[in-house]
Amino acid sequence: MYKLVLIRHGESTWNLENRFTGWTDVDLTPTGVSQAMSAGKLLKAEGFEFDLAYTSVLKRAIHTLWYALDEMDCTWLPVRKDWRLNERHYGGLQGLNKADMAKQYGDAQVLQWRRSYDVPPPALEPTDARSERSDRRYAELNPEQVPLTECLKDTVARVVPFWTDTLAPQIKAGKRIVIAAHGNSIRALVKYLDNIADDAIVGVNIPNGIPLVYELDENLKPIRSYYLGDAEAAAKAAAAVAAQGKA
Amino acid sequence: MYKLVLIRHGESTWNLENRFTGWTDVDLTPTGVSQAMSAGKLLKAEGFEFDLAYTSVLKRAIHTLWYALDEMDCTWLPVRKDWRLNERHYGGLQGLNKADMAKQYGDAQVLQWRRSYDVPPPALEPTDARSERSDRRYAELNPEQVPLTECLKDTVARVVPFWTDTLAPQIKAGKRIVIAAHGNSIRALVKYLDNIADDAIVGVNIPNGIPLVYELDENLKPIRSYYLGDAEAAAKAAAAVAAQGKA
Repeated sequence: MYKLVLIRHGESTWNLENRFTGWTDVDLTPTGVSQAMSAGKLLKAEGFEFDLAYTSVLKRAIHTLWYALDEMDCTWLPVRKDWRLNERHYGGLQGLNKADMAKQYGDAQVLQWRRSYDVPPPALEPTDARSERSDRRYAELNPEQVPLTECLKDTVARVVPFWTDTLAPQIKAGKRIVIAAHGNSIRALVKYLDNIADDAIVGVNIPNGIPLVYELDENLKPIRSYYLGDAEAAAKAAAAVAAQGKA
Repeated sequence: MYKLVLIRHGESTWNLENRFTGWTDVDLTPTGVSQAMSAGKLLKAEGFEFDLAYTSVLKRAIHTLWYALDEMDCTWLPVRKDWRLNERHYGGLQGLNKADMAKQYGDAQVLQWRRSYDVPPPALEPTDARSERSDRRYAELNPEQVPLTECLKDTVARVVPFWTDTLAPQIKAGKRIVIAAHGNSIRALVKYLDNIADDAIVGVNIPNGIPLVYELDENLKPIRSYYLGDAEAAAKAAAAVAAQGKA
């Protein structure tokens, strides 16, 4: 049996300000730092050990991983950063307030932007100052690979190949992996692993900074998955994530 | 022309306590954290950009790199950790106080332990609790590759192959590299790059947390090297390192 641990980054400054974030590279809040440290403490207390760590190229996930590894006293672990673990790109909504948008466009529209499986938010113009196409961290990609917006289906379309070509072979080779990533890159992976239908994934919300443990069989099919620590606190935190888009 | 930047980690708890450290995995002091941040600020102010970062598997160097990358706002850079960049192994001296040892054995003996090119300090017993042979971060090495003591010549013998097989090809491929490492792994590299004689390297001391810039020609021969920032402060800091082993 294999184990895989997923951690959504701790609270970010734009989580706190209730703004759509996407690929914008905002940092953790002090609460987010505490959540990341708590994740590491929990993993340590439960005796988890890892061989390899993955994260996105966004600092809120990178810092979450760093704080967690620090708590586990294994900063020496190899860490690989990959843009395919980035948050879903939020297009023209990046930077805007979720509740303001709900007031302006209604809860239903914001829920669609947040949780529609296959309808992306309005795209950024490639010339928009917010576009990441000129960011040198993506310089090795073709410009078209750097999204101007994404629906969850688009995120799945980059996360699943990353699972197949990179994560799954490492897990099968016996590497115990921890991944620090984002609400929607983790939802994309959860959807794939648990084979969740397109219209059911809307109900899945990932709380910040609570390790999500998957136990996988020899074919990497989930045997079970659970949040580490206080199950009730995890459920409450997930419900709070679900409520963020209300006016 | 290529550029390479070397940073010795900021002050560690055992630097502060004047203890032989070697492969013992001690952390930075608050001063060490400031030094690491200053290194990042200096590099940023001078317009340095990197494509790739290397460090050892010891947290004082890893944390130094993290703080420096944070200041440069490039935590997304790929970071590779390699044991061959570790500090020189200090054998049976690890944990002991340098000045105490100088009182007990004399300045000359301590200078030999600290700076002899080819006489290692007394070896650890493999069964010594301080030995790293049971540390899982070295699990992929043959036990004999995990030293029980090292003289600088031994450190050179692992650092130079790392240069040749890993760093040099990346630099020639155009990668701009920053390395956060240790007094003696940096001295080993400096000895090789600057072709310093065995009996002259004793006079080379690397200050904590000050970026050392190498400009290299197309054959990776140094054109010049210099400490970034205040040259006088760097010279003073290097002199203080030289004085650490006095009773």
